[in-house]
Amino acid sequence: MPLPAPQTYSPDGFRPLTFHDAVPGFRDGSDTPRAYLERCLATIAEVEPQVMAFASLNEAGAREAADASAARYKAGAPLSPIDGLPIGVKDLLETRDLPTEMGSAFYKGNRPGRDSALVQALRQAGAVIVGKTVTTELGMSHPGPTRHPFDLRRTPGGSSSGSGAVISARMLPAAIGTQVLGSVIRPASFNANWALKPTQGGINRGERQGFSQSTVGIHAGSAQDMWQIAVEIVKRVGGDPGAPGLYFTREDPPAPVVPRRLAVLETEGWAVAEPKAIAAFEQALDVLRAQGIAILRRGDHPLLEALEQRVMGAMGLATDVCAYESAWSVANMMAKNPDALSESLKARFELGCSVTLAQYRMRLLQREEMRRAQAAMAGEVDGFIGLPACGPTPMPGDTGGSSNRILHTTGNPIMNTASSGLGCPVVTVPRMAVDGLPLGISITTQPHQDERAVAIARWIAEAVPPIMV
Amino acid sequence: MPLPAPQTYSPDGFRPLTFHDAVPGFRDGSDTPRAYLERCLATIAEVEPQVMAFASLNEAGAREAADASAARYKAGAPLSPIDGLPIGVKDLLETRDLPTEMGSAFYKGNRPGRDSALVQALRQAGAVIVGKTVTTELGMSHPGPTRHPFDLRRTPGGSSSGSGAVISARMLPAAIGTQVLGSVIRPASFNANWALKPTQGGINRGERQGFSQSTVGIHAGSAQDMWQIAVEIVKRVGGDPGAPGLYFTREDPPAPVVPRRLAVLETEGWAVAEPKAIAAFEQALDVLRAQGIAILRRGDHPLLEALEQRVMGAMGLATDVCAYESAWSVANMMAKNPDALSESLKARFELGCSVTLAQYRMRLLQREEMRRAQAAMAGEVDGFIGLPACGPTPMPGDTGGSSNRILHTTGNPIMNTASSGLGCPVVTVPRMAVDGLPLGISITTQPHQDERAVAIARWIAEAVPPIMV
Repeated sequence: MPLPAPQTYSPDGFRPLTFHDAVPGFRDGSDTPRAYLERCLATIAEVEPQVMAFASLNEAGAREAADASAARYKAGAPLSPIDGLPIGVKDLLETRDLPTEMGSAFYKGNRPGRDSALVQALRQAGAVIVGKTVTTELGMSHPGPTRHPFDLRRTPGGSSSGSGAVISARMLPAAIGTQVLGSVIRPASFNANWALKPTQGGINRGERQGFSQSTVGIHAGSAQDMWQIAVEIVKRVGGDPGAPGLYFTREDPPAPVVPRRLAVLETEGWAVAEPKAIAAFEQALDVLRAQGIAILRRGDHPLLEALEQRVMGAMGLATDVCAYESAWSVANMMAKNPDALSESLKARFELGCSVTLAQYRMRLLQREEMRRAQAAMAGEVDGFIGLPACGPTPMPGDTGGSSNRILHTTGNPIMNTASSGLGCPVVTVPRMAVDGLPLGISITTQPHQDERAVAIARWIAEAVPPIMV
Repeated sequence: MPLPAPQTYSPDGFRPLTFHDAVPGFRDGSDTPRAYLERCLATIAEVEPQVMAFASLNEAGAREAADASAARYKAGAPLSPIDGLPIGVKDLLETRDLPTEMGSAFYKGNRPGRDSALVQALRQAGAVIVGKTVTTELGMSHPGPTRHPFDLRRTPGGSSSGSGAVISARMLPAAIGTQVLGSVIRPASFNANWALKPTQGGINRGERQGFSQSTVGIHAGSAQDMWQIAVEIVKRVGGDPGAPGLYFTREDPPAPVVPRRLAVLETEGWAVAEPKAIAAFEQALDVLRAQGIAILRRGDHPLLEALEQRVMGAMGLATDVCAYESAWSVANMMAKNPDALSESLKARFELGCSVTLAQYRMRLLQREEMRRAQAAMAGEVDGFIGLPACGPTPMPGDTGGSSNRILHTTGNPIMNTASSGLGCPVVTVPRMAVDGLPLGISITTQPHQDERAVAIARWIAEAVPPIMV
């Protein structure tokens, strides 16, 4: 059966699902969380067979949770602003009601029967866990089955493949992802999501504390939902052990804030970005300049140039650090059932075993130097602006300029490894299209300035008209 | 059947098992790792029925590993200086061959089939995993069955109850423990162990990354074995994710170093310490002064006084922080099988649920202030000296001065919560006896000065004659 023709994306034409604007209807009785869920489930029934964004679904459990939510609204006592919100959870994180298979044959049928910290928080806030979203193998390597909703020949990105795709397919208004190299921001860009990769440690990773530079992230159809979900989680279960957790000065989404100066953070991804993606981004910068925003480029300021130089090895850094940190864990899988591991995961394991303690310490030093260089820019600009991906979702086999065959199977994360290493917040804003496919704009701030990143990103979304190249 | 009469401990009379001095025999063929193991197993067969230090044993696996080690020595190719070392692993950490029951009815029969990072490293270094040692419930609350080898009416301390007791019972030369509040240093003191609680993050905690102030620790019969084990682990699997791991400038144990100035770190434990314990400690200080070591007390230096004031709330801090950080995890257990949890664990869970994000952040600030105050002392003294426990192992029901019934069931950790919060290394030296029971001396240094702490501790062991009160 031939695939349906690709859909053409336009930033203003595409209307993802949003939740916050449905809440008044729940309050006045003109809509209910159950009816909202049923609309999601109808879309899921229609498009999921082709998109394959879910690793598993719990429709009965979701209906039960939605009914309970409806009763709370009827009683005038919702648990939180996200009471009734249907949400997907990346299949790396544990939920008590569904398997946690992590995109890995090794974990086929794995049912830990536990809720990860943020899943507990979501349930306490009244959110409706609809299903587990597809991840690449262990969030690292081999892609899952998910296809891009706008063009089924293409990847939705990874490793948060399903969490990105449920938004662009309008199956859900929000989903939880995770990022180590570029697993939230890249699929968010490919799928016209709003997404927040918070400050390192900002949202509790629960049982997944094994990487020093990984975060949970929020994918959503709107900035409001994205922020509200993050806040409602952190209020209840905080950030990672020892971290203060996401800072928020008020619980509702920060209002748009006009930045006075933004620095372009090119990173090593710039050299392999698609010319059309760069052209679209330069158009966006022109729009900002026309509105009086000062845009710094790397040649304009020695500290910015220093930062660019320090982040130049961020991809190699992230690859080494993650391979080293996960080696002992993958060794257990290798000892038990090596046939259940992909070749790319095995290659990463070999790399991890080859990294010495001295080399790992050098990588930590390199990362610390990157972070110092970013901190040195704190007084120079309100934030950083950049491309969240090298271009729109690539066709299969397209390496996106990377020679590393391990990394590009769901697109090249090279635009994201700098901010992953920096441990700072990044927000993706869906404002551009290249060849009829989505491309985001990323706003990055200093660590712990997540709220500022969202505020600037919201202003960008208002100030920049749709850009289509 | 009446219990056997308590044994009287004397610091010089007691000869724990040591391993490093057996290695020459393995090399020249006069002894073998298998024969060493058999001597351990014979002692285990004799005393384990009364001491109950093991949660599980793998004698067959240990014999196999010891034979493989013996073959390597015969071939002149041991894997490391600890090749053939019989060792116990606290039953909080996963081993592929034995259950991991964590002292909890909830985890009865739990067989994850994985080796924790340090267990992998130990096997790679040729060490012989003999069994899992008893822990209190989840390393936190309800005591396990282990009894003190010198007086079976008393506790061996906790939560590393079995790891402390296998040394004093001469069943093994070494064991792995873990510490959150005082779970390595306190049982080590009760059991006349040498023990190292390393710098926070210094030894890879593997799957147990859930607490911001917990560490793995090494219990041993000698400083040499203790250090060598730590080094051989860290060489292979490093420290926690993002941490540089234990620093060592050479792989063999640091030679004794004479400190010029030591500060007494009293902590809030001083107020509830037993008078005889303080008397013994003051005798030790007199010995040091007589050898020309300057001893600073809190009144002698405003920075030391500032540190003492900052650590004054370390027990409350540790209790809140750990309860908050573990609440989401214990919530899963409560949801599944609350009957499998002790009342003290439930009380701790209630506490964790009651700590707000704002309160947790206040605790992190308090901890940071403690750490700054310790750092400010870096130029003033070579290290800190103190009591590792309020006294020798208490009788059951003795609260050791604590009014907190959750915490004292295996002795009061109040002498250890300061250094746990500081995240700095602590070494316990067995040099004192109170009423015929062991009491250690603790040496504490700045974070990452683990090697210096061991070097000073080794000198203390030589310079201080046995003190018996």
